[in-house]
Amino acid sequence: MRALEPLPSHLPASEQAARLPRGFEALGTTAGIKESGAPDLAVVLVTDGPAAIAATFTTNRLPAAAVRMNQAHLEVTAPAGEGRYGWVDAMMCTSGCTNAATGEAGLADQRSLAATLATHAGTQPERVIAMSTGLIGTRLPVERVAGALTSIAGSFGTDDQAFADVADAMRTTDSVAKAASVTVELRSPEGGLVPVTVSGVAKGVGMIHPEMATMLSFVLTDADAQPETLSRMLRPIVARTWNQTSIDGDQSTNDTVLLVASGASGTAPIDEDPQAVAALAGAVEAVARSLARQQAADGEGATTLITCAVSGAADDAAARAAARAVVSSDLLKAAVHGADPNWGRIAMAVGNARVASASTLEAAGLTPEAAAARAGHAVEVDPDALQIDIEGTPVFAGVPLEYEEGTLSERMKRGEVLIRVDLGIGPGVGEAFGCDLTQEYVIENSEYSS
Amino acid sequence: MRALEPLPSHLPASEQAARLPRGFEALGTTAGIKESGAPDLAVVLVTDGPAAIAATFTTNRLPAAAVRMNQAHLEVTAPAGEGRYGWVDAMMCTSGCTNAATGEAGLADQRSLAATLATHAGTQPERVIAMSTGLIGTRLPVERVAGALTSIAGSFGTDDQAFADVADAMRTTDSVAKAASVTVELRSPEGGLVPVTVSGVAKGVGMIHPEMATMLSFVLTDADAQPETLSRMLRPIVARTWNQTSIDGDQSTNDTVLLVASGASGTAPIDEDPQAVAALAGAVEAVARSLARQQAADGEGATTLITCAVSGAADDAAARAAARAVVSSDLLKAAVHGADPNWGRIAMAVGNARVASASTLEAAGLTPEAAAARAGHAVEVDPDALQIDIEGTPVFAGVPLEYEEGTLSERMKRGEVLIRVDLGIGPGVGEAFGCDLTQEYVIENSEYSS
Repeated sequence: MRALEPLPSHLPASEQAARLPRGFEALGTTAGIKESGAPDLAVVLVTDGPAAIAATFTTNRLPAAAVRMNQAHLEVTAPAGEGRYGWVDAMMCTSGCTNAATGEAGLADQRSLAATLATHAGTQPERVIAMSTGLIGTRLPVERVAGALTSIAGSFGTDDQAFADVADAMRTTDSVAKAASVTVELRSPEGGLVPVTVSGVAKGVGMIHPEMATMLSFVLTDADAQPETLSRMLRPIVARTWNQTSIDGDQSTNDTVLLVASGASGTAPIDEDPQAVAALAGAVEAVARSLARQQAADGEGATTLITCAVSGAADDAAARAAARAVVSSDLLKAAVHGADPNWGRIAMAVGNARVASASTLEAAGLTPEAAAARAGHAVEVDPDALQIDIEGTPVFAGVPLEYEEGTLSERMKRGEVLIRVDLGIGPGVGEAFGCDLTQEYVIENSEYSS
Repeated sequence: MRALEPLPSHLPASEQAARLPRGFEALGTTAGIKESGAPDLAVVLVTDGPAAIAATFTTNRLPAAAVRMNQAHLEVTAPAGEGRYGWVDAMMCTSGCTNAATGEAGLADQRSLAATLATHAGTQPERVIAMSTGLIGTRLPVERVAGALTSIAGSFGTDDQAFADVADAMRTTDSVAKAASVTVELRSPEGGLVPVTVSGVAKGVGMIHPEMATMLSFVLTDADAQPETLSRMLRPIVARTWNQTSIDGDQSTNDTVLLVASGASGTAPIDEDPQAVAALAGAVEAVARSLARQQAADGEGATTLITCAVSGAADDAAARAAARAVVSSDLLKAAVHGADPNWGRIAMAVGNARVASASTLEAAGLTPEAAAARAGHAVEVDPDALQIDIEGTPVFAGVPLEYEEGTLSERMKRGEVLIRVDLGIGPGVGEAFGCDLTQEYVIENSEYSS
């Protein structure tokens, strides 16, 4: 049989550590939103602001108050950015209450807290960005959170522990905090090489009744970049990483990724230097990919991380769609849980795959015309050219192949399963990350609240 | 609050019975495909053929051998129909083996069985249509099935039991056989009223490892209609019924619906009579809707049928998309299993809804231009206008409402839950059918085969 094409991988190595880049100070604390008394408020300040920021937000048509407020704030600090990028001095994340489906009153709550943090940080409210996660349909305890915000002076740290505390305070039902860090070298204005850190923390998508699968991430760097550069960099990276992660196919009202550059590393601005942009983008993608995989592995009830790598597709959008269809199939997810090399369910999922919506394709870098032409189309599949392998074992190549089922099943019990699919049609590659479907998922999500 | 709009419902009443319309003879028998010895071969012959037939097939890009053969046969008997309609003398359904992912050899198996049945029925192979369901990736036991086909003369019945036997032989893991029947009166050529029967049987979508969620249905009538008339009638009905049914979001390689008109009732041809077409379409839709709901209620592992009725959408396509998003959400399905009136998950699912692909919209009756313009777009939602009620209890109307949770939870334990959503935007209505997500689903689908 034809050898499966390897996926291109030129990403720098990342480590699972929360190294706080220069130019930020951070803390995680308890404001009293969660009944458990666990940390539920994270704040990140820009030391010598403002910092350039790019953001991606949920496309859910019922966005949370924080998402609505952020988009309005970014439109003020960078009117050309249409709410996608701008400038920021202070960021906060509350956990335990989504502040979604709370109407205009919920929006007023969020604005009031932004004003409080702005006063503390000595900036205007429009340079404050907020994220939230937790219970839907309840109001934020504004007085308690405002009280916490006015008493945190002196509690900020500039070390890695402070950023780890941020990751911890963002958690809802995550079993572990998620962090990833990469260092690359960029040119200084004098021409020397300067180390630049890209670090991210994230929460989700583990969830338990009645919380939602909100996915939030801070990605911070001390590189020097304009907001628009960051935004152009961020969107295709999110398309290849977080948007290729599926725990249960549901998208929360609050999903937010923030990419923030303080410029404190002393590098030259990267904006006019394609090589520097590529180097930083590689670091951001390595961090995003690591966080997305950590999140999929911690999917609610999950025991096994599923990675599906697709090659040979007509184009990358088709490859990503096929990979995502595989990790999103409840049938395949249940089969992986049973360590069952059920390739029929992989073939079925690939056969059902449809290229994403036009907006997703545009985010991934296609022109509006190209995106409209491709959106929603079935992924091209030739049954005779299709090849599937599971954990390195070829199981299908146009026809079912003979393989040692018991041996392969044993290999599927090690906490991670790699499924490779080659469509044998074109140069498109892509991957997606998911997790197995377990009884624990059903139990946790059907538990009645009272 | 604004009263929720009732869904329009002008469908005739259906009963869950397998009344065989005139002009057909049928049987269900054991051919030896299933190891269990359960019935696994159904045959329906047209008494005085050929009969007009319209069909919808899976859009999975890896269609089973039967689907590929049927499309080729229909293209021969009605070249203008592009494989969507034609003429038929004999139909068969095998259960226990999908004959999918079996390559050209599997297609040859299917053609060989069609030729055997054609010989028995005194017709040519192109007037034979076949459906199959069961294990993927294995070959049909051709000799055994051919043997059964050559020994069934004299076993056919023209009574309701014969059609019930067809429903029984189509089952794989269905816990009960599904049937629905409606009688309407149409004009005879002499101007009198003649009773016309529309009856359907269906299997799926219960599944257990390693079988797939194949959905198959015969809908038979003794009305007199041309294939193209049936095809124009069938596509929007399938869009409103079976395509709005979701057990787990996966579409099999074999899904097939056949609508067959024998003309044996003695009515005038309906094709040029809009009133007669509408009457027959109403009967077909009532049968299709009943079968789709029976299938959702019997979803694998399911304990509760979920119906989501959406009104106030921008148009019907948007309403159907929103309804389908609700019944497809694993989070909502798990909440219903726990009798948890978690309206936040309903709002979240509505906010994520996207209008279907262009091909689905075209099938539902939109022009290709209109379908392309709407495909994949987010469903328009105004958070302030959104209203949700569960089992008649209003729970959200722009803001969360007060309600008695314990009482509502009790009402959700009765085997069926009706969720009504009003978007408050336009005249569009639609509904969708699903079932709860249970631990049993995970257990059955993660059981290792060996």
